Amino acid sequence: MQILRSIRELRQQLSSIDALRRGVGFVPTMGALHAGHGRLMETSVRETDSTVVSIFVNPSQFNDPGDFARYPRPFDTDAAFCESLGASIVFAPSEQEMYPEPQQTFVDVARVTERLEGAFRPGHFRGVATVVMKLFQIVQPDRAYFGEKDAQQLAVIRRMVADLNLPIEIVGVATVRDPDGLALSSRNQRLTPAQRALAPLLYQALQLAASRIAQGSRDPQSIEQEALSVLAHPEIRVEYLEIVDPAFMQPVDRIEGPVRIAVAAFLGSTRLIDNVLAG
Amino acid sequence: MQILRSIRELRQQLSSIDALRRGVGFVPTMGALHAGHGRLMETSVRETDSTVVSIFVNPSQFNDPGDFARYPRPFDTDAAFCESLGASIVFAPSEQEMYPEPQQTFVDVARVTERLEGAFRPGHFRGVATVVMKLFQIVQPDRAYFGEKDAQQLAVIRRMVADLNLPIEIVGVATVRDPDGLALSSRNQRLTPAQRALAPLLYQALQLAASRIAQGSRDPQSIEQEALSVLAHPEIRVEYLEIVDPAFMQPVDRIEGPVRIAVAAFLGSTRLIDNVLAG
Repeated sequence: MQILRSIRELRQQLSSIDALRRGVGFVPTMGALHAGHGRLMETSVRETDSTVVSIFVNPSQFNDPGDFARYPRPFDTDAAFCESLGASIVFAPSEQEMYPEPQQTFVDVARVTERLEGAFRPGHFRGVATVVMKLFQIVQPDRAYFGEKDAQQLAVIRRMVADLNLPIEIVGVATVRDPDGLALSSRNQRLTPAQRALAPLLYQALQLAASRIAQGSRDPQSIEQEALSVLAHPEIRVEYLEIVDPAFMQPVDRIEGPVRIAVAAFLGSTRLIDNVLAG
Repeated sequence: MQILRSIRELRQQLSSIDALRRGVGFVPTMGALHAGHGRLMETSVRETDSTVVSIFVNPSQFNDPGDFARYPRPFDTDAAFCESLGASIVFAPSEQEMYPEPQQTFVDVARVTERLEGAFRPGHFRGVATVVMKLFQIVQPDRAYFGEKDAQQLAVIRRMVADLNLPIEIVGVATVRDPDGLALSSRNQRLTPAQRALAPLLYQALQLAASRIAQGSRDPQSIEQEALSVLAHPEIRVEYLEIVDPAFMQPVDRIEGPVRIAVAAFLGSTRLIDNVLAG
């Protein structure tokens, strides 16, 4: 009998019982796939033996029922897109399959969920963490791929995986942008032509803030104010533009290392988010 | 490429990628092992290829710091006991190993935690669910063994496993009792001889309630009152004696199917719990 005291030793012992590395990559999505998801899938297909893509519009992470109802669901197009990129399995469960009984167990991540999306979308990250935990248990991937466009979500998932000792490597994949800088999002297709023309201002504001940091500015408040002025337009309603530390997503008093600059704004009834790493 | 919509199909596909069934049984404990734990281990050794026993006195599930400090930790005796019963691995992590950083992610199970222990030990089940989730992820067992003495804990774990789709079979194992009926507990060793002599009254009260149900009584309140009279002694301070449904641990208005009768009481500073299934 062995007595082990470290998680690493234990897992090594247990994996020697396991014969074979599975090499399963997982890309959880809500469908309405675009080139950003495409990059997640391509990365997974390159790095693992089998790529599982889930397509599930998860009701419990929508704080706005209208947003849930309007969320696009072009399943056949999505499935063809997955096929074209070499996915092995599309997992597309019904709500009944995912929530056969009223869900009573929830995964909550503190601190990293306090600001930004967490502050403006009550319950959102509880819904995300819980459904991602369910999907992780169902798929049991070796690696899972998330886009950096949802930087706070990525930080929440990384925190959950570390805190709950999930044996899954989380891979963050760079945001894919249209040529004018707009981050790809399933919600972009809801923008009117006029809103679409304004939407690149989000990235321009972030870029301005990043360039100020590159130039040596260290005061987050003055940088935020200057970046916000880029978004001063009657059709744009900013929810936040904030400079935070990349691990805990908390505001910084002074910029002394890498920071994440994050923005959320409504264009009409469509809410867009974006972020860049700087410093 | 396959498109799957059910969790069962997906898991079948994924396990065909997996070559080998691991057959790992897991017995999570806080040490101070007794014949109740012994029965869990024996069951696991019989039913699986490799039995992992964890010994970890988890601080986050103690609502009373004094109880945590006093909790017995006879590690060498425990390890020898595991060895004698055929365990393959004892996993005995430090607090630093389990909580290297402040834990920010918690698993909460609603409803089933509202009454009984949940009502009297605030935060207890959050601590239990979170550490068991961590241990499940670390060990990745096929089956995990829990004693029915902690019936609400067993119900919480079953709910968590179902709600979060954990691919683990939860096995409840019958309570082991001393000849006079006292349920084995690591806390029994703290009882004075006088308290030890009184302690079997808990089981006697439960048995009285169960016999009334067997005789056809259907009113929980009158049964509870009668059972409580068994415990009317100046050295016994009852926290609850309650008849609940076995799945959700909620009080029943009328006994119309199987119920769990649960009791918690202090003898001096030592808190004991017990329960029986009836109906």
